[in-house]
Amino acid sequence: MTVTFNDWAKGIQAAMEADMSAYLPAATVIPTKLHEAMRYALLGGGKRVRPLLVHAAGALFGADAQVLSRAAAAVEMIHAYSLVHDDMPCMDDDELRRGKPTVHVAYDEATALLVGDALQAQAFGVLAGCGSLPSARLVTMLCLLADAAGSAGMCGGQAIDLDSVGISLTLEQLERMHQLKTGALLRASVVLGALAGKDLHAEELQALDDYSRAIGLAFQVVDDVLDATADSATLGKTAGKDAADNKPTYVSILGLDKSIALAEQLRRDAHAALAPFGENARRLFELADLIVQRKA
Amino acid sequence: MTVTFNDWAKGIQAAMEADMSAYLPAATVIPTKLHEAMRYALLGGGKRVRPLLVHAAGALFGADAQVLSRAAAAVEMIHAYSLVHDDMPCMDDDELRRGKPTVHVAYDEATALLVGDALQAQAFGVLAGCGSLPSARLVTMLCLLADAAGSAGMCGGQAIDLDSVGISLTLEQLERMHQLKTGALLRASVVLGALAGKDLHAEELQALDDYSRAIGLAFQVVDDVLDATADSATLGKTAGKDAADNKPTYVSILGLDKSIALAEQLRRDAHAALAPFGENARRLFELADLIVQRKA
Repeated sequence: MTVTFNDWAKGIQAAMEADMSAYLPAATVIPTKLHEAMRYALLGGGKRVRPLLVHAAGALFGADAQVLSRAAAAVEMIHAYSLVHDDMPCMDDDELRRGKPTVHVAYDEATALLVGDALQAQAFGVLAGCGSLPSARLVTMLCLLADAAGSAGMCGGQAIDLDSVGISLTLEQLERMHQLKTGALLRASVVLGALAGKDLHAEELQALDDYSRAIGLAFQVVDDVLDATADSATLGKTAGKDAADNKPTYVSILGLDKSIALAEQLRRDAHAALAPFGENARRLFELADLIVQRKA
Repeated sequence: MTVTFNDWAKGIQAAMEADMSAYLPAATVIPTKLHEAMRYALLGGGKRVRPLLVHAAGALFGADAQVLSRAAAAVEMIHAYSLVHDDMPCMDDDELRRGKPTVHVAYDEATALLVGDALQAQAFGVLAGCGSLPSARLVTMLCLLADAAGSAGMCGGQAIDLDSVGISLTLEQLERMHQLKTGALLRASVVLGALAGKDLHAEELQALDDYSRAIGLAFQVVDDVLDATADSATLGKTAGKDAADNKPTYVSILGLDKSIALAEQLRRDAHAALAPFGENARRLFELADLIVQRKA
């Protein structure tokens, strides 16, 4: 009997919750406040889109479950740390995240800063702890995670975003910013999952890049649509922030209807990119649907 | 003819300046402000104690110069990012570092936050880029760096430090805090340098740990002595901060004379730990002297 997408996703989400808890120090270990706050930031919520992508890509080449768990946790730790830092007063100054007070509100700013810093280090440590992979491939994966997280990836996109407040961007500039800010880590999720299975040929990597580019943009377009149309309770974070902050978005540049149409086109692009992988790409296919259809 | 310690150190410092510049994106690469600020934070100053330790430990087993350069840059990037974040208003709120305005003063808080985040990612990327090492040993080195940087190391020590403001610590608690806050990364510098040369036996690692513990504590004792006795111009940072912030220090617990005597004892401990390595440990021996004798 086939496992439905929802059951598959719920299984991964539950397993990741348990695994990520085990990859973090217990809240009783000194410094207890820091460890408690790290757990608060990482556990107990979130759609876990990136871990789902890692596991879905891992299914392409039959990757080892333990390696996928570590790769997925590493990517999610990078994502979680970036949320903690982005929410701080000197950045987006957000008080609500996943329906809970943000870390600097629940604890304090200094702790939020350290939580982010320590989660990033932990991410590299958890990935580097993948004992069962060939070491050379593991080093490739660590390089990939570092690139995706740093100034050529997520941090770079965040910096461009900061520099863009109040400036009117072209669609091309907006796309470039998001390809770094969120796209780089989504791509890393996909490629790490695949690399957990085997070394990749150039054409395999290209297909995964095409898929990642499409879902990365779709993710952001849908984010902008939801920010403009959903309420805070549904989103679990403050809605309407982008307009209030005068940030350029797909909705502000393209309008709502064209943004929704773009998300649909990107879903088709993502699906098309998966053709070479056949039935093994089913979860990646369904994840493109999830990303476009999500309501929060 | 023998190269003096000063000439050796100057050579390393100059080489590291050039190498670290090459490991960072140019200031002309988008996002330019972030890259300029990363360079501002990392380049053009600092005693480079950690890179000197990496190179000195590398001399124990004839490590490859290129690998030592990357390991040294990685540790220094972690150190530099921690300074940027520690100086921010929500932490120590310092305006002067190495005689220059701190990053959040020269740029802004959001940029300082991202500079630290991106430098940490870059550190792991630069170390992971050590192509010429056996991959398994490189993975060990990456694990070691992650542990030293995270909540079981530097970030953990910083968290304990935050929790200790206004509290009277025992000497034991103070030592534990500093072993994490600064000691973990100093130890990582020594062990990474040695690992750049070869896999380590348990007794070699123990000797390096004993050395690292002694210089790590000595470093902090001397820091406290200098904070209590030197002026800001000599230090290149704000003097007297610890007392003003009501932070526990060796000077506040032991008094000045006993603190100076403790630093001398730790220097002797460090020297004794190096006995098994003979003449190859000369630079490590001299670095213990430098750490105790420094005036800034």
